[in-house]
Amino acid sequence: MEKIFATIITIGDELLIGQVIDTNSPWMAQELNKVGIPVKHRVAVGDVWQDIRDSLDEESKHAQVILLTGGLGPTADDITKPVLCEYFGGKMVVHQPTLDHLKHLFENILKRPMIERNAKQAELPDVCTVLKNEMGTAPGMMFERDGKIYIAMPGVPTEMQWLMKHKVLPLLKEKIKTGFIEHRTLLTAGIGESYLADMIKDFEEALPSNIKLAYLPNHGMVRLRLTSSGDNLDSLNKELNDKFQTLKTLVATYLVTDEDIPLEAVVGRLLLEKNKTIATAESCTGGYIAHLLTSIPGSSAYYMGSVVSYDYGVKKEALGVKEETLITYGAVSEETVREMAAGILKMMHTDYVIAVSGIMGPGGGMPQKPVGLAWVAVASKDKVMTQKFNFRFDRSRNIQLTAASALNLVRQLIVDNS
Amino acid sequence: MEKIFATIITIGDELLIGQVIDTNSPWMAQELNKVGIPVKHRVAVGDVWQDIRDSLDEESKHAQVILLTGGLGPTADDITKPVLCEYFGGKMVVHQPTLDHLKHLFENILKRPMIERNAKQAELPDVCTVLKNEMGTAPGMMFERDGKIYIAMPGVPTEMQWLMKHKVLPLLKEKIKTGFIEHRTLLTAGIGESYLADMIKDFEEALPSNIKLAYLPNHGMVRLRLTSSGDNLDSLNKELNDKFQTLKTLVATYLVTDEDIPLEAVVGRLLLEKNKTIATAESCTGGYIAHLLTSIPGSSAYYMGSVVSYDYGVKKEALGVKEETLITYGAVSEETVREMAAGILKMMHTDYVIAVSGIMGPGGGMPQKPVGLAWVAVASKDKVMTQKFNFRFDRSRNIQLTAASALNLVRQLIVDNS
Repeated sequence: MEKIFATIITIGDELLIGQVIDTNSPWMAQELNKVGIPVKHRVAVGDVWQDIRDSLDEESKHAQVILLTGGLGPTADDITKPVLCEYFGGKMVVHQPTLDHLKHLFENILKRPMIERNAKQAELPDVCTVLKNEMGTAPGMMFERDGKIYIAMPGVPTEMQWLMKHKVLPLLKEKIKTGFIEHRTLLTAGIGESYLADMIKDFEEALPSNIKLAYLPNHGMVRLRLTSSGDNLDSLNKELNDKFQTLKTLVATYLVTDEDIPLEAVVGRLLLEKNKTIATAESCTGGYIAHLLTSIPGSSAYYMGSVVSYDYGVKKEALGVKEETLITYGAVSEETVREMAAGILKMMHTDYVIAVSGIMGPGGGMPQKPVGLAWVAVASKDKVMTQKFNFRFDRSRNIQLTAASALNLVRQLIVDNS
Repeated sequence: MEKIFATIITIGDELLIGQVIDTNSPWMAQELNKVGIPVKHRVAVGDVWQDIRDSLDEESKHAQVILLTGGLGPTADDITKPVLCEYFGGKMVVHQPTLDHLKHLFENILKRPMIERNAKQAELPDVCTVLKNEMGTAPGMMFERDGKIYIAMPGVPTEMQWLMKHKVLPLLKEKIKTGFIEHRTLLTAGIGESYLADMIKDFEEALPSNIKLAYLPNHGMVRLRLTSSGDNLDSLNKELNDKFQTLKTLVATYLVTDEDIPLEAVVGRLLLEKNKTIATAESCTGGYIAHLLTSIPGSSAYYMGSVVSYDYGVKKEALGVKEETLITYGAVSEETVREMAAGILKMMHTDYVIAVSGIMGPGGGMPQKPVGLAWVAVASKDKVMTQKFNFRFDRSRNIQLTAASALNLVRQLIVDNS
């Protein structure tokens, strides 16, 4: 069986001047992998006629499935549609079902008059299969040539995702007999990438050629991923599960989770399982820990709330940190985070709390308390754990690392308490 | 003068299975643009020998500057260094200054023994110029061939950024006589992309060929960007400023800012200018508004804090929302956000407050209060403004849209109060 590959072409000047971060490609790659079509290549090009054509030529050398996003909007900088029409030798015609959909959308949903510019979106190449976009004005378009499939979608993430789920993936599954790709991922904390690699060196060297191991360090933790591909799903899964089990045993001391979920979901799941609740008191992370915890659907079952105490006064009045503590030890100190933890525990009546205070930069550093210093306290009614961190990065990364470290510390406390 | 282009090759299987979002390329693209080297292409390839070689062949057709990131770590899946060594016909030799740096790093900074795997990182191709990486263990490498420059850097964002700033960009400026690229960006709110395009149609059509206009819709707002390139910076800036002034006048009614800064920075700047303070009471956004406001360096000058009241009890006890209000109107109601705003104003003693409550999904929707419903109140001592929103997206995007809408509403209140 010929190995099928996909390639993703994202179109838009904003991608090349760095004004936006491309979150579409990772999402599409995940979905394609799930249906057994690995992505071999990802390319970003500008809103430039010849560059889009060149990328179509080039990418069809690498892959049988070529997915494009972007450049389908109603404004003059959107040229993907005419480029594709020319590339596949078609001409533009009014597509009545799309026009009807647009009329319906403007009359009944958007409730504003449809202007000519919008109606133009119903003009489509007569050589494509139109994929109706129920989430927006620009439909998807499928072209076929020399056994290869080209599908263009809008760049708006919700519209692209809807089209992928309801049109593109079902079409691909129907048209392509794919192999299977499976991943197993685990997360470790408390050990560096090199040490981990040494620890599992023999395991890695003995892996069969169809299984790949990847190290993915992030936020001071390392994710390990095993990937296998093949035509028989059962034997593939059996072999992969077997290797994964061995890997888990090898890294057991440092294992945080054996699922590909973020740390905040691990903490949430632990709390749900044990029917416990949590609250946070954040100074330097400014609500980021609360945001991570509440980004998980259903978190209202265990997350009660937070006091973000950016100001001295809020630390004292809302959290009950003593004036004396702030004066003697400062806002960034073990004593202060202990009192913040006690204060939020009393206020929110939860089983667990996290309290953090630090200096995230770029300003605010002092010789004894440099930028990157963070104190974390996690507590239950019976126990308090504190830890000091010294990060050496920029504001944004210092905030992320402080949040991840705090979540990992409370995870340990919850596990220890069991 | 020959037009100089750059291309960015990011290397790593994690990019192709969608496990990570590439934030390096946008950052690099911004920096390259600032020194007048536009990015023509961005490519992501896996940790696969032939694919990396192919991308080097292919990208050197498009560009004179080829930047690579990723695959320089100490583990077996990192193969960028040997691929480059072979591609440029070199052999691996121990690079003494790098070995000395590694020893220093492990002895004095990391304070753990250097294992053989780490020492290997000092073995480098004898055909490259080594770019010392003071932020980590893997140095950058520069290769030159046929007038083209190839530079490989680690994929860790802080290390890549340090190398770009201290080594790569100075080198490129020295080696390449570049033209200039300038951008002007403004942000509008309260008008759709199509209407905006119609409003400035004549302006857009009359733009000279060296100036491009782009529409960048995001979070229910639209950013407009003018881009110009040329060899004479003075005349380029003069013409661009002139057009930008016209554009600002045309969209004045909807203008939020004429700088390329996020909405939370616009709000922060307004508060700083007027010497005012702000606090937040967040239910459904779970700390995300606090996080956005505190992501801006120096925000402690105007941001006092937040109560994240995920739980009913917290709404009552910490914010003083009346039991009766919650029972009669529900937690997601105009009455509740009004009382939350009053409560946080009293607690934090600020000039302005934001209060939000909503149903972000996927669960929790009801016929009268569907997923995506959000109520926002913004208030000062003298005035309260409320607004109801109905978003129709997933949890993550509903949270982002609620936060952006709340920040824009408080921005209007601050501007109106002046």
